[in-house]
Amino acid sequence: MSWRATVLTLFPEMFPGPLGASLPGKALEKGVWLMETLDIREFARNKHRSVDDTPFGGGAGMVMRPDVVDAALGAVADRPGPVIYLSPRGRKLDQPMARDLADGPGVTLLCGRYEGVDQRVIDSRRIVEVSLGDFVLSGGEPAAMAMIDACVRLLPGAMGSEESLDEESFERGLLEYPHYTRPQAWIDHDGVERVVPEVLTSGHHEKVRQWRRAEAERITAERRPDLWSAYVAAGEEDGN
Amino acid sequence: MSWRATVLTLFPEMFPGPLGASLPGKALEKGVWLMETLDIREFARNKHRSVDDTPFGGGAGMVMRPDVVDAALGAVADRPGPVIYLSPRGRKLDQPMARDLADGPGVTLLCGRYEGVDQRVIDSRRIVEVSLGDFVLSGGEPAAMAMIDACVRLLPGAMGSEESLDEESFERGLLEYPHYTRPQAWIDHDGVERVVPEVLTSGHHEKVRQWRRAEAERITAERRPDLWSAYVAAGEEDGN
Repeated sequence: MSWRATVLTLFPEMFPGPLGASLPGKALEKGVWLMETLDIREFARNKHRSVDDTPFGGGAGMVMRPDVVDAALGAVADRPGPVIYLSPRGRKLDQPMARDLADGPGVTLLCGRYEGVDQRVIDSRRIVEVSLGDFVLSGGEPAAMAMIDACVRLLPGAMGSEESLDEESFERGLLEYPHYTRPQAWIDHDGVERVVPEVLTSGHHEKVRQWRRAEAERITAERRPDLWSAYVAAGEEDGN
Repeated sequence: MSWRATVLTLFPEMFPGPLGASLPGKALEKGVWLMETLDIREFARNKHRSVDDTPFGGGAGMVMRPDVVDAALGAVADRPGPVIYLSPRGRKLDQPMARDLADGPGVTLLCGRYEGVDQRVIDSRRIVEVSLGDFVLSGGEPAAMAMIDACVRLLPGAMGSEESLDEESFERGLLEYPHYTRPQAWIDHDGVERVVPEVLTSGHHEKVRQWRRAEAERITAERRPDLWSAYVAAGEEDGN
């Protein structure tokens, strides 16, 4: 069974969008994962086929109706994996969460627009709120795309054998070391010659490994004291 | 002058994608912002027109060449606003950063694919690294879309007068209160009647305001101890 992404949205035409090209697009073609969209608007059974209405208590914006969203959720209740509502109030997406989701059968993502979804649907169905970060988007769709992308690239068969996961950011609690490729000596736009660090062209595998680890540690310590503290603490526990 | 998003990518066909519909799409049509993409591949001047090559020091994956990426950056050097490289090693996007960018003239976004971009380009140009969060994407494009969306909705004229920014998540250091709309009494899929909180239909504006503030505080305290501590500390400084 392929991993399955089910997206409930008012804008099904946005999908697969960026997920239809490059790595996720190739994986989609290969059948590594499946993408399904459901147009929430088709579940508006009321007289005016409206999906939203003004908020009780007043205030700006529109709220997505509980009956309409619930009918859409009901239609995909048999899809595998958790149901997630993308919301800035949710738990933040991180690499372990992406890995957990990728290890599962799939995910159903509810994308809100306007002021969001009536709270009663969130409460009555087992819906997990997940946030991309501490910023607000015009809707859940860009967040859904990022989330699906983060999961799909971790699926077996999504990545070519030439690519690798185990040294990238967050896999060892560190940010990634810097990368260099040809040309070995390169003149930048200010006329400054910039040469690749010598160790990387030494052919000495163990020294390369050590340099990369040291760089990953340096960058993490400089940029992310939070990750660095956790990394140091974990190392002490391991007796390293 | 309209706010301008310039995106350097190997997949220009991905844009505007989700930014072409709903709020950002309408704002794009109205000329509130401009979207420009630059195909990095067009700047590959080497014999095989390759944009990437194997990493020095060995290892999996391909790295985007510094000469090619630099030529692309050179072609848009006169575009307004900062140049940002989307990378999990960067500073995390948050609402204040989105607001700063929206207050400026625009942004140039460099999207990496494969293992990323040769470090020498990042070093030699004034490139800020920004991350969507602690997860890894197959490329910078989904992150660029989320980032542009977060900025565009803050631009004057992007949001209809019926919509509102000042009560949403992060604007006061709190997550947003829950929303409710019609129907007032709703039977959920388990047959449970769920009624909108009474205060919201009371017509008593001050009580509605107090209830919403209390709910925003409760949700923030429950879900985000980090935001809650900062909010409490700020309140004490204000003498509230």
